[in-house]
This record gives sequence, structure tokens and C-alpha cells, in this order.
Amino acid sequence: MKELIEKGKLAKEASYKLASLSSDDKNNALSSIAKALRENTDYILTANKTDIDNGIAAGMSEGLIDRLRLTEDRINSMADGIDQIVSLPDPIGEVISQTRRPNGLKIGKIRVPLGVIGIIYEARPNVTADAAGLCVKSGNAVILRGGKEAINSNKAIVKVMQDAAYANGLPYGSINLIEDTTRESSVALMKLNDYLDVIIPRGGASLIRAVVENATVPAIETGTGNCHVYVDSSANLEMAKNIVINAKTQRPSVCNAEEKLLINRDIAEEFLPIIVPELTSRGVEIVGDETVCSMFPDSTAANEEDWATEYLSLKIGIKIVDSIDEAITHINKYNSGHSEAIITSDYNASQKFLDEIDAAAVYVNASTRFTDGFEFGYGAEIGISTQKIHARGPMGLEALTSTKFIVYGNGQIRK
Amino acid sequence: MKELIEKGKLAKEASYKLASLSSDDKNNALSSIAKALRENTDYILTANKTDIDNGIAAGMSEGLIDRLRLTEDRINSMADGIDQIVSLPDPIGEVISQTRRPNGLKIGKIRVPLGVIGIIYEARPNVTADAAGLCVKSGNAVILRGGKEAINSNKAIVKVMQDAAYANGLPYGSINLIEDTTRESSVALMKLNDYLDVIIPRGGASLIRAVVENATVPAIETGTGNCHVYVDSSANLEMAKNIVINAKTQRPSVCNAEEKLLINRDIAEEFLPIIVPELTSRGVEIVGDETVCSMFPDSTAANEEDWATEYLSLKIGIKIVDSIDEAITHINKYNSGHSEAIITSDYNASQKFLDEIDAAAVYVNASTRFTDGFEFGYGAEIGISTQKIHARGPMGLEALTSTKFIVYGNGQIRK
Repeated sequence: MKELIEKGKLAKEASYKLASLSSDDKNNALSSIAKALRENTDYILTANKTDIDNGIAAGMSEGLIDRLRLTEDRINSMADGIDQIVSLPDPIGEVISQTRRPNGLKIGKIRVPLGVIGIIYEARPNVTADAAGLCVKSGNAVILRGGKEAINSNKAIVKVMQDAAYANGLPYGSINLIEDTTRESSVALMKLNDYLDVIIPRGGASLIRAVVENATVPAIETGTGNCHVYVDSSANLEMAKNIVINAKTQRPSVCNAEEKLLINRDIAEEFLPIIVPELTSRGVEIVGDETVCSMFPDSTAANEEDWATEYLSLKIGIKIVDSIDEAITHINKYNSGHSEAIITSDYNASQKFLDEIDAAAVYVNASTRFTDGFEFGYGAEIGISTQKIHARGPMGLEALTSTKFIVYGNGQIRK
Repeated sequence: MKELIEKGKLAKEASYKLASLSSDDKNNALSSIAKALRENTDYILTANKTDIDNGIAAGMSEGLIDRLRLTEDRINSMADGIDQIVSLPDPIGEVISQTRRPNGLKIGKIRVPLGVIGIIYEARPNVTADAAGLCVKSGNAVILRGGKEAINSNKAIVKVMQDAAYANGLPYGSINLIEDTTRESSVALMKLNDYLDVIIPRGGASLIRAVVENATVPAIETGTGNCHVYVDSSANLEMAKNIVINAKTQRPSVCNAEEKLLINRDIAEEFLPIIVPELTSRGVEIVGDETVCSMFPDSTAANEEDWATEYLSLKIGIKIVDSIDEAITHINKYNSGHSEAIITSDYNASQKFLDEIDAAAVYVNASTRFTDGFEFGYGAEIGISTQKIHARGPMGLEALTSTKFIVYGNGQIRK
């Protein structure tokens, strides 16, 4: 894998220089990148047309073609995204703490870049600009490895970004694209420990699984969301209805959409006839337990696999539970650690749910759809971590940093 | 691997209960554990004698036998360590931040346990008590997998801890020991993703490498230290001498000991005749570059491998560099990301070194030997992270925690 090693070396060398760049220098380069993306719209669209034509010839689905397609508007949005990253505060250099030890050593903990970040993603060319922008702003070099279907678009976007970046002060090697889109290059990137400090997959469950299984580079799992809404016996049912409909149907293809609805048995007979017709009238397919299927014979019986599945479509699993304890046990067993909500008017139920649910974001009386970097006030995000180490939940610029201890002495030796 | 799955399930279930235990409950159980370790000294020593006898019969080296050996004093130290953990503040439950978003959502970020922590270590039975104590205090369940040479000692220590813990309020399953000490059980533990949230190896380079190569569970690399001291042209040479001797010889077998000495060429002719006799008189073997070997013909010529090796013994590699830039480039190429020091009186050199060296701890005018949890003021440590994600440098209780977002709404839905 000559390409990987070459680009790994370049990125590593660039990362040392990037770490010391001032915010002004990084922002200046990023603004130039945004400008260059707008100015080279035609060049990028031409490359994208090749990908689209190839995709259509290969019989790609309309949904995938739509993800792959760039337009003048979409390129403008990419550039706007970069401009927005410029406006975010620079996390690097912050002294998080500094103490003076009894022996006089002054020990500071300072925020530094991670170094070199690998991003593995699918056929969404907008991720290319977005991820590179976030990495550069946080002082990291980046190695991008996008899906093969978008390779022409990615090459064009990266060329435009590199030309603008290197003409405006970013060290050569800051932004890299792996052009070999074989599966082998993807796996090799996951094992590039000599040059990569972290690898972040952005994509569906099978990509995440491939990274977890193959990566020897430290990885951050992102984005799978088997999210639940639990309607407690004390819930305001009008609120519950609005939240369930929003969480399930407002954008069903994303990771913070609701996949499962749990209803306390005390209110099931009242709430099911309210919520099921509302869902089915919006085209939602119902998969349910015995109670649900007996009340709504058009529903499909849920099997074990259903409870663990992230549908990412207009489909929902509904289960009746006897208690909040049963709801919590079910959620902790089947969830993917993303976003979980309780609808309740009961103080103790709300606290119990917040305390005992094991997930990145736990909600009382709100839609799970709010779990993202913009809604949480980070201004941008590189993904949503569903693991517990390093970062959990929406990852903004700070999640792309590490720390180091800087120690000021005047001759101290250990006794 | 039936044992792993059984204990994994137990630990996972215990972890949900542990997460909500109050500090008082955890401290009470830990104090009982410390007391039980002291009261069962004879029981533990008898088990340890079996390990020692087996070790001697197997021809184990004296150094390894010494690591393996427990005494009344050492068991007392283990108990003191647990008592000290009791006195540390509980990190769990801290609200790190809370904001109110424009839509009225109150989003808090709260510190929570990681969940279930796997610890893989070698034949040091003291790690058993130490690691379990830190995990319990931070609300985590723990699965311990120690070296086969210490299995009888570990079984005895864990039995004493479990009996005291479960009789004093810790949930059953909080502390687990894998009794299968085959290599297969170790590798299977590294892949126990269904039950483990993180795995932490504590031991030498080959153990760390095995974890990096095999683990699919998120891992934290710890403890390898190819540490450098760079003596700048502006250094106070008396201070440089004292620091180099301390960093190299005060305890050469540990990860924060100095392994390499870089000397600026401007002062090499003056400093080498000071430092080399001081080192050799203390039994330190010198491996050097051409200049060193020509001035001290008893030295061995360093090869490429030497620069990358952590000797962990009375051996040091010495290299003359033309500039601070050459020193920084050399260190960033060969170091293991642990601890690096510059000895200098020059302001710009100190800042440049602090800025550009890529390591967990960077020192000006002090010995690298200070990189540990106690010296940094954490009161205890589970290890020293040499990776950049999650935690870097000495890891105290906080490194054994994650966060979750708790979101208070009153009916918010996403527009």
C-alpha cells in the first residue's frame, strides 16, 4: 500500500507544523478554501457528473444517486459550512488546568491536536469538505477515504481544497485523499498505526462494524442509532403523540430518529388508538408485540431481531411494558447507545430514567431528533460517538483534540 | 469461552447498579475490602507461596520472582492503597456543563462510569487490588485477567475482595477474575465487545502490542516509555548532570525513566566528559553515536534499533545533535509518546520544545521520572496513557469515566 504510506508520511510531517499554526493562519486558509470551492463549482460539477453517470450505468438506487449528486446549491452549502467553521473558536492552545506541586513543578494541561485523523466514509462527497475543514481548524492533518462511487467528485473537491490551502499557508500534506478505493486500501488505512492517531468512520452500520473488527488504530464509533421513546403512565399523551411523530417521521433516515416505541401498560389501551393511526396515516409500518398485534391486526409481529434493528425508514417497533424498570432494562439491552427519551410527568420516573439509561443522550419530554452538533450548540460536528471512551454524543471541534502536560521545572529530580 | 461470557454478563448487570451507588456506599465497601485484605494476609500468602514455588520450579528469573512475591508488608501496602482510594473525591455525577438552548432545552453533560473495564496484566498480584479499587471507586465493574504465574495469588486476593465487597453493598458481579490464563482467553477478552466498554493493558511492550493488534474493544495503550532528555547549548550543566543521572538511574526499570540522551554539539565536548563517567560509575552501559564512541572507545555504537528501544535497564543511548530542531525531529520520530525533557536556560528553546514535542508530558528543567499519578496530584493511577484519544499521560479516576448528555425538555420537537 505505497499510496497510504506516502500520504501517511506527508500527513504526519504536516501535522507537526499544523499543531503550531495560529488561528489566524488556519482561518485564512479555510476562507480561501471556501472561496475556491465556490469559484470552481463547474470543475467539481463536471467531475460529479462522471460519478453520477457511472452510478446510473451501474444501476445505483435513486436514493444513493441523490446522496452522490452535487449541485451549485450543494457546493455553496459546502463552502458555507467551511465559512461557519472559520467562525468557531479555535480549541487548540487552551490551558485546561495548571497546578503548582509541592516540589515547585508547575504542571499545565494544554489542549493540542490529535495529529493525523483518518476519515472513512461512503458516497457522500459533501463529507469530504466538511471533515477536512473540521480537521484543519483543530490543527490536525487529515487522510480522507471516501466511497468508490464518489471518487471523481472527491478528487476534484480535494484538489480545489489543496490548491487553495497550500497557496494560503497550510503545510503541504495537511489534506490527503486516498485514491485507491479498493476494500484492501480501506482495511490497510485502519491499520496504519505508524501515521494515524485516530480513525473515524462516518457511515452505516456495516462500515462501523468493519472498522471495529479491523482497526488497530484507535477508532471512534459513530452514528448507529436504535433510539427509543418510552411513554410513561404519567405522560401527557398529546405531548407524547407529538414527540413520537416528530422523532419517527420528521427525518426517518437519520441516526437520531426514533426506531422503537415503548408504552406503559397502564395507558396502552388509551394511547395506542391515538398513536397508531397517526403513524400509519404518515406511511409508517408497524411492527409490534402481542398486545399491539391483537389491537391492530394489520401490524407485523416483532421478532428478537426487530428489537435490535435500526430501520432508518418509515417503520417502527412498538412494545408494551409493565413498568419503567422493564422499559429501562429493554432499552439498555437493545439500544446502540445513541439517544433515548422518556415522556413523563412524574419526577421520580424522570430522574430514574436519566440515571439508569446507558446512552450518549437521555431526554425527558423532548424528541430524540435533537442529538446533533448544531442543536447542541457546537456549531458543527464530525459525527455522533456511540462509544464511551474519548467522546460520547455529538462531536464538535473539541472531540478532535487531545491534551498534553507541559511541566515547568527549575532542576527538580525525583527522590 | 464460557467463563468470559458468564463473567461478562455478570459484570454488565452489576455495572448498571454500580453506576447509581452513592459515594458513601462505594467507600464503605472499599474500606471493608482493605480491612479484609489485612485480616486475610495468611490466606493470601499461602496462595502466593504456591505461585512462588511453581515459579522457582519453572526456572523463573529472580526479578520476576520478586515481582510475584507478596509479603505482609506488601499486602499492607495493597490495603493502604485501597484506603487511599477511599479518600479520593468521587468523580461520578459531576455536571461538567449545562446550557439552555434557544428552544428551551436544558442540556447537561454529566460524568458517568465507563461501565465494564477489562484489565489485562502480567505477574504482579498487587495490580489486582489496585485496579479493582480504582474501578469500583469510579463506579465501574471490572474484569481482571492477570498473568498465569500469579493465578493462585490473584484468586485468593479476588476471593477476599469479593467476599468483603458483596457483604458490604457492592452488587454481585462488580469484581471478576478470569481464571482461564491461556493466551486464547486473553485474546477473547480483547474481543468481548458485547460486555466490555474498554480494555486497559498494564504491562510491557509485547502485551501492549498484543492488545493493539487483537482488541476490537476500545483500548487504552499504556506505559511504554522511550524517554529522552535533550541538553540544550544554553543548559546549566550541573543541573543537566543531576537530571540525567536521576532520570536514568533512580529507577531504571520503569516507563518514565530516561532511555536516551541528546546533547547539543556546542556543549558536547564539555558535557560528555562530565556525564559519561558519572553514568558509567553507576553501572550504566553507554551506547553512542560516532562522536560519543570516538571520545569514549568503551561505548558500543548505536544502531537504528537502539534509538527506538526502551531498555528498562542501566543502559543509555547518547546522540549529539546540531540543533534543537534536530533534537525535536529525532524525538518525534523515535519516542513512544511518554515523557520528554529539555534542559535549557533559553526562553525560546523552552517554548519551542514545549510546543513541538509530541508526547504525553513535556518537561523543561526537570526529570522525566515525575510522570505518574501520584506526582501529578491525582492520588492514584490506573496507568499512563501513551495514546492520544480519551486520556493522555497519567490516568487517575477521571480517566475511568465517560460522560452522558441529560436533556430536560417540555415537549420540544425538531422543526
